[in-house]
Amino acid sequence: MTNSGTLYIVSAPSGAGKTSLLKAMITDTDGVRISVSHTTRQQRAGEVDGQDYHFVAVAEFQQMISDGAFLEYAQVFDNYYGTSRQSVQQQLDEGIDVILEIDWQGARQIRQLMPKARSIFILPPSREALAERLQGRGQDDQSVIERRMAAAKEEMSHFNEYDYLLINDDFDVAKQELAAIFIAERQMMASQTQRHEQLINNLLA
Amino acid sequence: MTNSGTLYIVSAPSGAGKTSLLKAMITDTDGVRISVSHTTRQQRAGEVDGQDYHFVAVAEFQQMISDGAFLEYAQVFDNYYGTSRQSVQQQLDEGIDVILEIDWQGARQIRQLMPKARSIFILPPSREALAERLQGRGQDDQSVIERRMAAAKEEMSHFNEYDYLLINDDFDVAKQELAAIFIAERQMMASQTQRHEQLINNLLA
Repeated sequence: MTNSGTLYIVSAPSGAGKTSLLKAMITDTDGVRISVSHTTRQQRAGEVDGQDYHFVAVAEFQQMISDGAFLEYAQVFDNYYGTSRQSVQQQLDEGIDVILEIDWQGARQIRQLMPKARSIFILPPSREALAERLQGRGQDDQSVIERRMAAAKEEMSHFNEYDYLLINDDFDVAKQELAAIFIAERQMMASQTQRHEQLINNLLA
Repeated sequence: MTNSGTLYIVSAPSGAGKTSLLKAMITDTDGVRISVSHTTRQQRAGEVDGQDYHFVAVAEFQQMISDGAFLEYAQVFDNYYGTSRQSVQQQLDEGIDVILEIDWQGARQIRQLMPKARSIFILPPSREALAERLQGRGQDDQSVIERRMAAAKEEMSHFNEYDYLLINDDFDVAKQELAAIFIAERQMMASQTQRHEQLINNLLA
């Protein structure tokens, strides 16, 4: 009996706590993985190739674009970021739910290609909480902070293109709400009839 | 900010463990209640009026039918069972999720009247487990057991009219999957934008 995983798109403005929530959630929840993106940006200290990102040269990335190897990709400032089609499909085929951490533009590309993908948008609990987080360690000048706030607003303005909306107020509550989405989606009729075909035939015989 | 609860229909064949699962789930999950049905059947020892059922006389039940007071009702053997429209609506208006434990025929009536209702079907983990449970305490004769099995099969044949399918194999796992459905549904975009209208306006201002 084959049962394929579900593709999830998770977007949020910087400062909403998306990455921390996802990392905590997948530790508690079986069968869910965060997709590892390809990027051309410099590997930072502490980052592991193949785990945080697949670090590739610009020429290689551009070749992958030509080959249609990406489900979605984007250029952010001077760097490319992309999601490998093959890697995602392979995990879905193994029955694993795969999470793409991408922005609203990537989300639109994915919805076109994978109409069964489910999407989740995460919002911070208040404007003040967001502003505080975007100020970082207080070492950035005002123009940098303003640029971050403008980018956050731009991202947030697309929240209602998503299936689910999560408010990251209490971290543990938000983590449980996030996990609940993955667990509940697996109980949807179409997914369950695929997974339990034999049992159903047996019960109705 | 008003936010109304969601109406849930939960059906299962006898012997699937529906009532035990629901009772355990609502103990752990805030804001969910099981609707108390009206019935004309005799109150049994240990049953509390207004808690297990609203026990009413046949004449009163029939008057309520004439008044359109029921969202759904059914006659099972010699007894009437029904769901009071007013009681359900009042709880939904208070933001409470309300569960109706009804069969597939009641479920069809509810879907007509309340198209936003979500529905969950619960199946036992195997034919053997079902047969064992339907045999009860071993005091019933074969024809009674066969009638129960036929009724269970009839009910199960409608499983795919529901939104969610739960398999009650491991009780604790099934309880968590059930709770996840209620928690995840509250994170759906339409529900969340209603609940967090003020926050969203504030963030996007």
